Amino acid sequence: MPQTIVAQATATGLSGLTVIRVSGDKAFEIVDKCFIGKQRVIDAKSHTILYGNFVDYKEIASQARNDATVNRHCGLDPQSPEIIDDVTVSIFKSPNSYTGEDTVEIGSHGGNVIPMKIIETLINAGCKHAEPGEFTRRAFINKKINLVQAEAVVDLIHSISVPTAQTSARQLRGGITNELEKLRQQLINFASMLELELDFADEEIDLISNKELLLFLENAITLCKNLSNSFTVSNILRDGFYVAIVGKPNAGKSTLFNSLLNKNRSIVSEIAGTTRDYISEYLILNDIPLKIIDTAGLRETVDTVEIAGIKIAQETLEEANLILFLNDISLGENFSDDLFLEIQNHYPNSDFLLVQNKCDLVYPDGIAGQARNDSLMFRHTALDAVSPENTIYISAKNQNDLEILKNKIGEFAKKATENTNDILLNERQYFKLLEIEKSLLSAKTLLLEDTVSEIISIEIRNAGRLLGELTGETWNEEVLNSIFSRFCIGK
Amino acid sequence: MPQTIVAQATATGLSGLTVIRVSGDKAFEIVDKCFIGKQRVIDAKSHTILYGNFVDYKEIASQARNDATVNRHCGLDPQSPEIIDDVTVSIFKSPNSYTGEDTVEIGSHGGNVIPMKIIETLINAGCKHAEPGEFTRRAFINKKINLVQAEAVVDLIHSISVPTAQTSARQLRGGITNELEKLRQQLINFASMLELELDFADEEIDLISNKELLLFLENAITLCKNLSNSFTVSNILRDGFYVAIVGKPNAGKSTLFNSLLNKNRSIVSEIAGTTRDYISEYLILNDIPLKIIDTAGLRETVDTVEIAGIKIAQETLEEANLILFLNDISLGENFSDDLFLEIQNHYPNSDFLLVQNKCDLVYPDGIAGQARNDSLMFRHTALDAVSPENTIYISAKNQNDLEILKNKIGEFAKKATENTNDILLNERQYFKLLEIEKSLLSAKTLLLEDTVSEIISIEIRNAGRLLGELTGETWNEEVLNSIFSRFCIGK
Repeated sequence: MPQTIVAQATATGLSGLTVIRVSGDKAFEIVDKCFIGKQRVIDAKSHTILYGNFVDYKEIASQARNDATVNRHCGLDPQSPEIIDDVTVSIFKSPNSYTGEDTVEIGSHGGNVIPMKIIETLINAGCKHAEPGEFTRRAFINKKINLVQAEAVVDLIHSISVPTAQTSARQLRGGITNELEKLRQQLINFASMLELELDFADEEIDLISNKELLLFLENAITLCKNLSNSFTVSNILRDGFYVAIVGKPNAGKSTLFNSLLNKNRSIVSEIAGTTRDYISEYLILNDIPLKIIDTAGLRETVDTVEIAGIKIAQETLEEANLILFLNDISLGENFSDDLFLEIQNHYPNSDFLLVQNKCDLVYPDGIAGQARNDSLMFRHTALDAVSPENTIYISAKNQNDLEILKNKIGEFAKKATENTNDILLNERQYFKLLEIEKSLLSAKTLLLEDTVSEIISIEIRNAGRLLGELTGETWNEEVLNSIFSRFCIGK
Repeated sequence: MPQTIVAQATATGLSGLTVIRVSGDKAFEIVDKCFIGKQRVIDAKSHTILYGNFVDYKEIASQARNDATVNRHCGLDPQSPEIIDDVTVSIFKSPNSYTGEDTVEIGSHGGNVIPMKIIETLINAGCKHAEPGEFTRRAFINKKINLVQAEAVVDLIHSISVPTAQTSARQLRGGITNELEKLRQQLINFASMLELELDFADEEIDLISNKELLLFLENAITLCKNLSNSFTVSNILRDGFYVAIVGKPNAGKSTLFNSLLNKNRSIVSEIAGTTRDYISEYLILNDIPLKIIDTAGLRETVDTVEIAGIKIAQETLEEANLILFLNDISLGENFSDDLFLEIQNHYPNSDFLLVQNKCDLVYPDGIAGQARNDSLMFRHTALDAVSPENTIYISAKNQNDLEILKNKIGEFAKKATENTNDILLNERQYFKLLEIEKSLLSAKTLLLEDTVSEIISIEIRNAGRLLGELTGETWNEEVLNSIFSRFCIGK
């Protein structure tokens, strides 16, 4: 039997309320050692709440103590130095709890001292302090959720935007995993039938037609492909849509960076848990978190590309979902074309916006931005990849037409986050899906080559096994350790 | 009817669980608009927990919606985009809740997005966002707790040590306030009797003997005095026992400061909510928080005293509960006597420890600290106030005999925090007690002067009224506003 665990489930800090979670087969017994209410925890019904005093547990015969205290009303002994706090005790009986085990949630006053003291007391009374993610790990072990759902918990808690939270919430509620489980069952069934055919090999009985199997394999491959394709979307939802601002020195990169951010104070980095590093900042646009990177602020790294005499951290441009080319129009519309051409050649598959900055110097009489943008004809330039609708004229300094630029960025971000498949794919899941896809493709090839069922069935079984590893039908300690180490303590 | 309020009750940040509290006469009705479970909140029993989905409230006829959803099991519609999270809903029916009103506590996943979205939805559904301390304010208005108990809530949450938490927890549970309420009743009774005597003035009937009244007044005065005397202890428990390190330049003040803190890493300032300012730090010693101040790091202020050519912020020494005089013994045991004498003259009532530092330079062969301390005879010095047992020989640099110094500091701190009277007196309460005491003393004087009952009764009634203001029997908006503004939102 695993030991009964305890940890603070709510965030630490000054607050009205703190919740401490206790889970395990001795949860009720242990809490009863430290709780004095009208009723004992062990006698209470599931999903009920008791109110009473949490007291400092001391090594006395707990039964004697319980007998003596069972009829004591809470608060009868307010001067007793052993009372730590008045608390609510919520009771969840196995299997109807988060972990599937008997669980107690103790609601105490917030702050730093009281919760610490309560946890300390529960440890003295027989609990062990929970490891990161241990509650969710037990929920998984007890089959309350599968592995893909467990992984959604972390994404849900760390969500930086509403769509991220919604997708991970759907993943947590089942979402795509039901479909995966169905596929796994089908794979096992098909493999079994193929194996069964072997027993009747002499009679040449086909339990399953080649056409039927081919159709199934193709559908399965499509499902896996669609899912693995959502890896990019998942990364954007999880970490933000990366927008890199590049340009020659003095093109106004940092000015644009600041202007974009100053116009919107709902910067995610002000929320605890995200980093403020001055060269990249979060900006929420249409509910999608954008991570804007000012390459001007980047320190040179070993992994730097020298393009047209300018050093740019290669990694930044590789990771960017959208690159903003910034040109100082006062030096000529084509002034930066050499740099841009070279970057385009390096990243032919990237999305670009050409931003003509410092329009205030060229149009000092302040022509309304929209009119100006409309009036500008197709720009004859070497930059074939940048269409006129992806060329924006602004003045970062005067904040002119920034909204047009932001709308354009928003369009790209929205397009990039369509089709989330109700899953925030992580690396583990992504590479597992690639492996499954490979097995399925191999099975398909073998089938088309008219290979014997025996060999095809091996590939299909393998895909089923890998799918089982994905959903956690089969698992090993190492995989679980790696997954749950990303959790916070108390979850 | 006050509006139904909502706020996050637990601390913000990444965590497994967040609790959002809803309180008011429409609490059940509003939560039902956004909750889909096996049962409706309004139909559930008090102190029970429902599990289900929290959904984005939209303006549809709520009755129709509730009718349609009442039989839906949670999770039936996992693909619905409107589901925000799966939640637990704890129900507390008036008057058996923290506020005394109908209350719902919604337990959702932690993080930043989900709780924000839930609160937003509840506001759309009819709640208003709670002001700081509004839940506790309602608990007070609904007579769940008195004002002295309400004030204990803040101290409990902000506690920086176990004794602080214990004292405020006792204050919250009633503690001293029962005694104060008893006294208030007695004052009213005595005043009434004195007034009744006036009606029988012609008949010279004494309903109460002068002796009896005098005894009562003297006891009441003693009670108030004891309580108001605990103001110093309260401040120490609340803000820490202030230890100021003073000494001439190069006496080793900062070295001692760092050595004291480095030896103990449980520095409270690492916990959110306390400030790290590099010249003062918290150190927990025997459960008592010490605030160590390195005067070397103090910037010169306008309010600076020049003593023996050294500038020291006057405020620091005035607030110090203990002053550590640091002398560089390698320059002579009496080297700093001029400075110390002057400081002693300024603060004749302060406690001092004379710390002879840099003993490693005088005793390079490293005589064991304890032996050295024992062998040193009474020091003939101008510092009469510093007795030999309050002179400590150390080497801050080599961390020699720091434990002896810490034990000594601990002794002073322990002595200073005895007799807490189960109350963490705050300024409001302190000055109210002084006023009460003044009225009682005045009544006593009048009684001894044989003044007519009428006049004495006025003073006694006044004391009763002031006591009512102390416990919150009578109150006004302004006082409540000032008290509850110190609370965090969600309490």
